[in-house]
Amino acid sequence: MAYSERAWDKPHEECGVFGIYDLAGGSVARSLYDGLVALQHRGQESAGMSISDTSKERGNLKTKKDMGLVSEVFSADDLALMQGNLGIGHVRYSTTGESTPQNAQPIAMNYIKGSLALVHNGNLVNAKTLKQQQMLRGQAHYTTTDSEVLAYEIVSARTRTPSAEAAVLEAGSQIRGGYAVLVTSPRKLIALRDPFGIKPLAFGRRENAWMFASESAAIAAAGGTFLRDVKPGEMIVITPDGPVSDTSLCHQKQAHCAFEYIYFARPDSVMDGVSVHASRRMAGRLLARWMKTDADLVTGVPDSGLAAAEGYAAEAQIPFALAFHKNSYIGRSFIKPTDTLRRLAVHQKLSVIEEVVRGKRVVLIDDSIVRGNTMRQIVDMLRQAGARAVHVRISSPPFLHPCYYGTDVSSERQLIAAEASCDEICKTIGADSLQYLTVADLRESAGGLPLCTACFDGEYPCKCKILVGK
Amino acid sequence: MAYSERAWDKPHEECGVFGIYDLAGGSVARSLYDGLVALQHRGQESAGMSISDTSKERGNLKTKKDMGLVSEVFSADDLALMQGNLGIGHVRYSTTGESTPQNAQPIAMNYIKGSLALVHNGNLVNAKTLKQQQMLRGQAHYTTTDSEVLAYEIVSARTRTPSAEAAVLEAGSQIRGGYAVLVTSPRKLIALRDPFGIKPLAFGRRENAWMFASESAAIAAAGGTFLRDVKPGEMIVITPDGPVSDTSLCHQKQAHCAFEYIYFARPDSVMDGVSVHASRRMAGRLLARWMKTDADLVTGVPDSGLAAAEGYAAEAQIPFALAFHKNSYIGRSFIKPTDTLRRLAVHQKLSVIEEVVRGKRVVLIDDSIVRGNTMRQIVDMLRQAGARAVHVRISSPPFLHPCYYGTDVSSERQLIAAEASCDEICKTIGADSLQYLTVADLRESAGGLPLCTACFDGEYPCKCKILVGK
Amino acid sequence: MAYSERAWDKPHEECGVFGIYDLAGGSVARSLYDGLVALQHRGQESAGMSISDTSKERGNLKTKKDMGLVSEVFSADDLALMQGNLGIGHVRYSTTGESTPQNAQPIAMNYIKGSLALVHNGNLVNAKTLKQQQMLRGQAHYTTTDSEVLAYEIVSARTRTPSAEAAVLEAGSQIRGGYAVLVTSPRKLIALRDPFGIKPLAFGRRENAWMFASESAAIAAAGGTFLRDVKPGEMIVITPDGPVSDTSLCHQKQAHCAFEYIYFARPDSVMDGVSVHASRRMAGRLLARWMKTDADLVTGVPDSGLAAAEGYAAEAQIPFALAFHKNSYIGRSFIKPTDTLRRLAVHQKLSVIEEVVRGKRVVLIDDSIVRGNTMRQIVDMLRQAGARAVHVRISSPPFLHPCYYGTDVSSERQLIAAEASCDEICKTIGADSLQYLTVADLRESAGGLPLCTACFDGEYPCKCKILVGK
Amino acid sequence: MAYSERAWDKPHEECGVFGIYDLAGGSVARSLYDGLVALQHRGQESAGMSISDTSKERGNLKTKKDMGLVSEVFSADDLALMQGNLGIGHVRYSTTGESTPQNAQPIAMNYIKGSLALVHNGNLVNAKTLKQQQMLRGQAHYTTTDSEVLAYEIVSARTRTPSAEAAVLEAGSQIRGGYAVLVTSPRKLIALRDPFGIKPLAFGRRENAWMFASESAAIAAAGGTFLRDVKPGEMIVITPDGPVSDTSLCHQKQAHCAFEYIYFARPDSVMDGVSVHASRRMAGRLLARWMKTDADLVTGVPDSGLAAAEGYAAEAQIPFALAFHKNSYIGRSFIKPTDTLRRLAVHQKLSVIEEVVRGKRVVLIDDSIVRGNTMRQIVDMLRQAGARAVHVRISSPPFLHPCYYGTDVSSERQLIAAEASCDEICKTIGADSLQYLTVADLRESAGGLPLCTACFDGEYPCKCKILVGK
Repeated sequence: MAYSERAWDKPHEECGVFGIYDLAGGSVARSLYDGLVALQHRGQESAGMSISDTSKERGNLKTKKDMGLVSEVFSADDLALMQGNLGIGHVRYSTTGESTPQNAQPIAMNYIKGSLALVHNGNLVNAKTLKQQQMLRGQAHYTTTDSEVLAYEIVSARTRTPSAEAAVLEAGSQIRGGYAVLVTSPRKLIALRDPFGIKPLAFGRRENAWMFASESAAIAAAGGTFLRDVKPGEMIVITPDGPVSDTSLCHQKQAHCAFEYIYFARPDSVMDGVSVHASRRMAGRLLARWMKTDADLVTGVPDSGLAAAEGYAAEAQIPFALAFHKNSYIGRSFIKPTDTLRRLAVHQKLSVIEEVVRGKRVVLIDDSIVRGNTMRQIVDMLRQAGARAVHVRISSPPFLHPCYYGTDVSSERQLIAAEASCDEICKTIGADSLQYLTVADLRESAGGLPLCTACFDGEYPCKCKILVGK
Repeated sequence: MAYSERAWDKPHEECGVFGIYDLAGGSVARSLYDGLVALQHRGQESAGMSISDTSKERGNLKTKKDMGLVSEVFSADDLALMQGNLGIGHVRYSTTGESTPQNAQPIAMNYIKGSLALVHNGNLVNAKTLKQQQMLRGQAHYTTTDSEVLAYEIVSARTRTPSAEAAVLEAGSQIRGGYAVLVTSPRKLIALRDPFGIKPLAFGRRENAWMFASESAAIAAAGGTFLRDVKPGEMIVITPDGPVSDTSLCHQKQAHCAFEYIYFARPDSVMDGVSVHASRRMAGRLLARWMKTDADLVTGVPDSGLAAAEGYAAEAQIPFALAFHKNSYIGRSFIKPTDTLRRLAVHQKLSVIEEVVRGKRVVLIDDSIVRGNTMRQIVDMLRQAGARAVHVRISSPPFLHPCYYGTDVSSERQLIAAEASCDEICKTIGADSLQYLTVADLRESAGGLPLCTACFDGEYPCKCKILVGK
Repeated sequence: MAYSERAWDKPHEECGVFGIYDLAGGSVARSLYDGLVALQHRGQESAGMSISDTSKERGNLKTKKDMGLVSEVFSADDLALMQGNLGIGHVRYSTTGESTPQNAQPIAMNYIKGSLALVHNGNLVNAKTLKQQQMLRGQAHYTTTDSEVLAYEIVSARTRTPSAEAAVLEAGSQIRGGYAVLVTSPRKLIALRDPFGIKPLAFGRRENAWMFASESAAIAAAGGTFLRDVKPGEMIVITPDGPVSDTSLCHQKQAHCAFEYIYFARPDSVMDGVSVHASRRMAGRLLARWMKTDADLVTGVPDSGLAAAEGYAAEAQIPFALAFHKNSYIGRSFIKPTDTLRRLAVHQKLSVIEEVVRGKRVVLIDDSIVRGNTMRQIVDMLRQAGARAVHVRISSPPFLHPCYYGTDVSSERQLIAAEASCDEICKTIGADSLQYLTVADLRESAGGLPLCTACFDGEYPCKCKILVGK
Repeated sequence: MAYSERAWDKPHEECGVFGIYDLAGGSVARSLYDGLVALQHRGQESAGMSISDTSKERGNLKTKKDMGLVSEVFSADDLALMQGNLGIGHVRYSTTGESTPQNAQPIAMNYIKGSLALVHNGNLVNAKTLKQQQMLRGQAHYTTTDSEVLAYEIVSARTRTPSAEAAVLEAGSQIRGGYAVLVTSPRKLIALRDPFGIKPLAFGRRENAWMFASESAAIAAAGGTFLRDVKPGEMIVITPDGPVSDTSLCHQKQAHCAFEYIYFARPDSVMDGVSVHASRRMAGRLLARWMKTDADLVTGVPDSGLAAAEGYAAEAQIPFALAFHKNSYIGRSFIKPTDTLRRLAVHQKLSVIEEVVRGKRVVLIDDSIVRGNTMRQIVDMLRQAGARAVHVRISSPPFLHPCYYGTDVSSERQLIAAEASCDEICKTIGADSLQYLTVADLRESAGGLPLCTACFDGEYPCKCKILVGK
């Protein structure tokens, strides 16, 4: 997955988190950097790290965060200054809170027990209520994020709990929503995942260094070995004596975000036991089973549509080929979300290899359609390059409902599927035919894992959506 | 006053504040900028502004702050974006809290009543105690400044008071120390000065725009007219209906910082009824009365020693002349506080006009000696340029005690006067004679105004110094 | 093609050129920008443009160039300032001349007829001799590039020729090597391609705007239609009256750079009548014909190895699959060419999708091996992901000889193929088998086009290599 | 002297040069930096240095230059990289050539004998003719400066002369105008001053390091001792064996730029035997002799009017006092030369100390009036501060003629004195009386030194002004 710009017509994930605690005292800055770079696809607006040295007196927490990519925010000199063996980091695509430097994470504050840093992927659906209570207690906010709301829940709980982990647990019992959270207290690294398991969180190690990451692939990128997922509702605390698990917030029902499999996650990640690549390939196979299409060629929109295209081609016994060239060097200077610029962005980023499609009937696989304008251009490009027919196959069901758990597919974007029938959309994008994956097939593609499919069928995992507000 | 670098051997002021509220709705960004530039001599480490438009819904407070001079932090584009008719700003030289971007002011936070911004010149002597109480209440700190402690006192008070000004007043009753504070609540600008009047705060207006500034000269620079000083202990609130004064925190005893007259303030400022220039000139006269000196020439170390030198020359009937060329273009790149670099800094910044001093017996006036090394170099430069004698006259008494109210003359700097006799210092700096102003003459130079002279005689205005700690 | 870093073990192209002249007077800055972005894969070290407005008096040539990507060098504000209807631009990867800002192109100078700007892709083999002659004439050099040598040849010729194009032609008769050159004289855009056609140069138009680009895909990216290649040795001059062709430098023998087809060019480009994608796919087919391999899966190193892998898979009747995830967000901060960092660079950039290769015998296609260390790591990554066998197939012959025409495969890099047998290399990279394309098959893959294969077989198109020197 | 902005209504000098060659091999970067900082008042638009290590093989010349102050262009890291024992540097205020980075000096080029770097203060009046000849020879220009014209004269001469110094001498015989030039050839440092001595050039040493600088004060700032002025027309060559003088270009007539004494030079510099400070003080004395004025106070516009004010006060027996506060921290962001902004610039930069002038009749000394608008504001400020009368005395004669030798007092600026009588100007600036220095007194103030007074009386030292053009 590699489309970074808001201009690109895709749902957007809000962030990725990474944490590492080397109990043997080794420096973690470089591993943290590598882990964040491996998660960069989850958010490109801001990046940050907080690192402390647990062998020193308290209060040596160092934080650096700014707008931009990990590689833009951190220079080699910065990393050299970020000495310490306990650190957390964050990459962000804003869904709640404005896109400003002050909203970048980690949230780092001094509280009654010393320094605390927190990173968070997800959305709290009861943030507004909690924030009101906090302000009544005199807790001022420096950001407009729900991550700061969560941090304050922990700080408040800490005044009446015997330990940082007890405070995190108490905060966890107050918040509702989808979240993967990492917290450093002076000598501990605490990870907490929401009870539905909406947001992913992987657990790994490299010798004495324990790691958490939004995706297993980031643990590998930091030189570690993936051990298992943090369980939905589980808190894992890395103490100087090693990891301790607490499952008191766990409950039966699970609802993993379907979009991690469809689009967000890297194909080389494995989440809750399901290979992201395998689920995408299977989605392609299931699409092909549903309806036979006469075609000469199956291709996918790079990069996230390619695995489904391979699956479709294999199932339909139609040759697969790469039909697009993607330019990796598009800058961000001119990419502002106007319609004209979005159109330019597509043309600069993707071009069709005429040789491949000329005279062919093409099955084109993509993972989703949000507003339809990007797909219309791609179909058009294929026809201009000589394709005789373009059959569009989407490896996810149509979006019909907003997401309250941290995926940006609503509000300022029109959901074409909510307003138009499949036939109308087909006409709008100029395709010869259009087919979406069914929700049932989506579930099958993920091997039967319990998914949150609220954005497709309105079945929200909890009934808390009425709490949502700005 | 123009010496900006820490390398320069002078006491340092911590900051300057400026606030403006145009009740007629005009934009204040440019005036705020001009006011801050006029206060730049009070602090060069960081600068910042918060501005809001009171005609719009709440929550439109915009804040920009960073390390550097006012002219470096704010571009023309920045000012254009800072639209609004209510604003406060700050220039900072750190005395408490580290020198980091996060410690720059204004402190801007969201609290139960909306947005609050605060700027502060001074030191709270009971900040440590208050901060501990705040943290017990769950109030996390993002900075290491006592200004944030003050902000939280206001935020806490606001939960139990009917108005923002009542909250400021209640906070004022809790804090001890020297301070000049400006606070914006959504539609008010509140100014508070400490009851001893240690820190200065001027009040002025330009048509419907009301202004506060650390010095009267800044009000003029912003196009306003100086009305009067905020009284020690007085709170003035600018409401949409105009200014309201509250004197409930006022008390009898006053103790204005002597160093404002000796060194900190601009010569064109008038503070608590006393012209800064006149007090300096008078200090020179008084120095000359005390002891007759055979000399051919009186000169001063630019810029702050010149007014006293003029006074000395007039009283002693010895010709005055400018004997130094000062280079305004010294960069900051290499100015780091090592002894070698301090020496280079002096040589780059000051040079002697040989023509003026060759063959002459020189009386050299400066406002203070902290460690003595700068003065030793200046005396040496005069001799190399051919001066036959160098008699040093200091227009303030010797420093003997630390300041707890926001002037940086202690800790990491050795106070030469605390360790050596006047004769020994004279020898150290290589002068032919050395004379300090007496504390009594200092008082006379300020026209009998009640001064805080604690750094000279240990007479602290209140007995709260035992509270001080990091 | 998307690997930007020097750390990556690939031959490097030195640059890409783009030129556009809108005879109707329209602004060309944005099209020039788009064209350069589309050529960014050919050079990422520096970028630049020169633009003039032919409706204004002479001397309004504006040039901006700097180190970095096109999107880093040019902001929206910059483009707005670059008004004009005649422009040329350049992206650079340095082969001759140091990697410094002053060596960035265009070369822009004032000469006897006004302003001249020049961009150049290629290497002049007799640059040293010409430069010596120029210096004897008093022509000083501000850069260390052979492009400046070429510019001076034109300037010198201009003093004795009736027109700019005559001067370019005379310069063309003096220089030896491979080159594609664009020159603006005040009201003309002149394109010249070397007589062997070593370097590519495409010609296109969009209404009244005529364009030249290193690759046809860039013409499409700028909204134009590809017309034809500039012929080897041909000069095309765009005058206010339209294009004029001159073929007086053309000769029989042609020798197109084979590496454009193997690796440099975009797959969606067509050069000298041959589709780059088709030639790569055919190279894969030919590899498969030569030797049968028992395998379960064919994959390619992204992105340039993928087309050959598709061809191999089709020919060998073995399933094709994408087995790698490529991270597009690798920053440049830490990418310095030490061996350790190169290793890190590969791991950050590429990861294996275990799901795809576990338990499989894999045929891995890449386009070339320079030093072998990158390939060793990739083979190792595949084995760690569970591949049972890794058979490496290279879609080009082994490098054995240096290139003197502008491809950086020599000097500071060891050519593993020049020092080791195929078996030894196979062992070094840890593969189960290794096969290279033959030179004959390479020719066949390009459809029989006359290629320069000097780096494979030492058959240099001209005998001028003895002239080469610094 | 400290007014840096173009907005300030003063004539402008175009640059300062500094050169140093340590024959003992010591590093010169830091001394060069210090020397340039000491010359910063002569030009603030761009700064640059070229440095080479004469113990190494040729071609190791390193050049760095950019827009901005010396302290902005050079970081500590930059200086550390600029290793070498032979260097030249430049600060620039553009008079000819546009204000662009490419026009920054040193001019550094490679020519037939290796690397050459050149810095230049002054203007060549026959640059246009020479440039035309150069272009006919095929010499292209990368800048629009006459400094490059001079460099090319040297490069051309070098092809037919036995040594670099012979080439400089031959170039010197071709050029006309005012200039001080420093040239490095690989192992020599060559200084040349124009035969009239219009531009200053000082010569000094520090042990084995020989120095040249536009002003003697810069030699002191770099730790050296002033030896003597380079004579008008003299060339001094520092070779590995020491300095060699050549006086073959010298002639009888001299004409030193009067404005160096009036305004440009630092007061602590001595030029051609005359102390700058002394000449300014004497100008004040002479002004007072000419006409008696009833007044209570003499003051000067800081900084360059102060010495004359001291002289005036002493002669007229009226008390001298500093009446202005100057703010050293004015940024450059908003200083653009519109009338409104110029007015703001004056108010931000200067303020009157009311205490000093209230109720007084003031004699105000300044060094010059160009357009009159700045002076009008200053007179106005004095009256607003309570001055009863303001008598303006100018320590130079009225400007009536343009300067062709490198001082920017013409073209885009209106010369008020050329269009209005003294009485009219007096009225325009709102003064009670106005008096200029006479040309005769100006000569006397400089001790009878032969001055170029062309801008006052039209007596140009040579008749070459007809050659002038763009």
